[in-house]
Amino acid sequence: MGVSGAADPDSFFTGMVVMTAPIDPGGLSPEQARALFRGGLRVPTAGWCAGWTQANLIAVPRDHAYDLLLFAQRNPKPCPVLDVTEPGETSASLFSGDLRTDLPGYVVYERGEPVAEVPDVTRHWCDDLVAFLIGCSFTFEDALREAGVPVRHIEQDRNVPMYRTNRRCRPAGSFRGPLVVSMRPVPAGLVADAVRVTSRYPSVHGAPVHVGDPVALGIDDLDRPDFGEPVDVRAGEVPVFWACGVTPQAAVMASRPSLAIGHLPGHMAVTDARDARYVVP
Amino acid sequence: MGVSGAADPDSFFTGMVVMTAPIDPGGLSPEQARALFRGGLRVPTAGWCAGWTQANLIAVPRDHAYDLLLFAQRNPKPCPVLDVTEPGETSASLFSGDLRTDLPGYVVYERGEPVAEVPDVTRHWCDDLVAFLIGCSFTFEDALREAGVPVRHIEQDRNVPMYRTNRRCRPAGSFRGPLVVSMRPVPAGLVADAVRVTSRYPSVHGAPVHVGDPVALGIDDLDRPDFGEPVDVRAGEVPVFWACGVTPQAAVMASRPSLAIGHLPGHMAVTDARDARYVVP
Repeated sequence: MGVSGAADPDSFFTGMVVMTAPIDPGGLSPEQARALFRGGLRVPTAGWCAGWTQANLIAVPRDHAYDLLLFAQRNPKPCPVLDVTEPGETSASLFSGDLRTDLPGYVVYERGEPVAEVPDVTRHWCDDLVAFLIGCSFTFEDALREAGVPVRHIEQDRNVPMYRTNRRCRPAGSFRGPLVVSMRPVPAGLVADAVRVTSRYPSVHGAPVHVGDPVALGIDDLDRPDFGEPVDVRAGEVPVFWACGVTPQAAVMASRPSLAIGHLPGHMAVTDARDARYVVP
Repeated sequence: MGVSGAADPDSFFTGMVVMTAPIDPGGLSPEQARALFRGGLRVPTAGWCAGWTQANLIAVPRDHAYDLLLFAQRNPKPCPVLDVTEPGETSASLFSGDLRTDLPGYVVYERGEPVAEVPDVTRHWCDDLVAFLIGCSFTFEDALREAGVPVRHIEQDRNVPMYRTNRRCRPAGSFRGPLVVSMRPVPAGLVADAVRVTSRYPSVHGAPVHVGDPVALGIDDLDRPDFGEPVDVRAGEVPVFWACGVTPQAAVMASRPSLAIGHLPGHMAVTDARDARYVVP
């Protein structure tokens, strides 16, 4: 898969990045990818930096951090916590880059309302902000592809489709909200393989939460995801749903803390941890 | 294994419990065991209530709860969080009994000093206390025995031996302290089985943290555990060490929060959850 800013209407560049040839994003190191994102490249990160773990970001003021950490503990399937910063820190033990600039996109929330979608949150970051890195299902996509399970959004060079569901998370303090899921269409004969492979990654959402009928999750139309982009579901394929690390952002929208900063869905933090760290035997 | 209060100098009874015959503690339900403990029976719970998950207890004031929850997140091997109560609650979603009375023993800490070792903490419990239930390695002991791995402290009808180590936990806010481990002697030819079996229980301490030489962990004498009782290590056996849920109590001693309540080591909360819930495929 090549990435070309000009070919992707969702991409943007600043004057700091000039790409003279398509790059192979799967072959980049985390440092290289973060430098591109810091320079202004906006692109979904599925397929980037093969073997390196990607993470969801959610940052809230210290006053809300306990409720959010407890929300994550009570909802480990959508909210597996990989790392938590000290208040005000701009990097994390798993992420040596700058959390304010080195993701390809951010959403800023004030009282639960998304007020900005920006490539840099330096001016929004404050001394009492606690950042959570939450596991991401992109982590097991290399393993899915190695097992012969197609990953359609990578094939189609699109952002993964994500949906709010009718399932409620277990609340914690002020935090509540719906489970958000990502969807990958899987040929019926490979569903068992998809389950088997992803079960081995419990700290990055693990096994699917639902296989089949989207309506049972309250999803009326797969072609209209709440986040990301739709992908083709072909004859003989079953939609398979995994818990998604955008769930904390849906909780922010429902729970309305004074401030929150999340990654732009699908535009993840590329960490310094190897995927292998999160596989169980 | 039979339990007889008279035969065990560590046991005590109140007038509320009269046991007329030895009971089979492995066959009891959680409700039955909790009723005995509520009645005053003080006994280590290894081997009790086969198939039901046991848990470590640590309760701290709400002001310290974030630091403790973050300490657990940063040290998941010794501190796998199974459940967290709302402030002041006396039961938990995994524990329908009364957390103040239904464990066989408690330790009360004031500013990190153990000030009482009691069968009932009703008078110490307060409205802003948050209780954590932490996974316990007793959960995988049935599976060890089914795999043919002996569990010496059950064979010898003793409390499991536990040791402070020279390994530091990753601190979080005010919480810091050493890793505490439990030890089981395993015949050299069964060490691999012990690793394989316990690896399948990652949320109740999982695989061993150390196999062999105790001195490498800073343990000078296996016959003098810091908690629990020594057990026999026989010729041809290797001491195998698992992370232990007494670690938060060692952190309380090092970090000196105003108040904390823990279970008496080895004298666990018998929950309403099945062990099978914590096995990975």
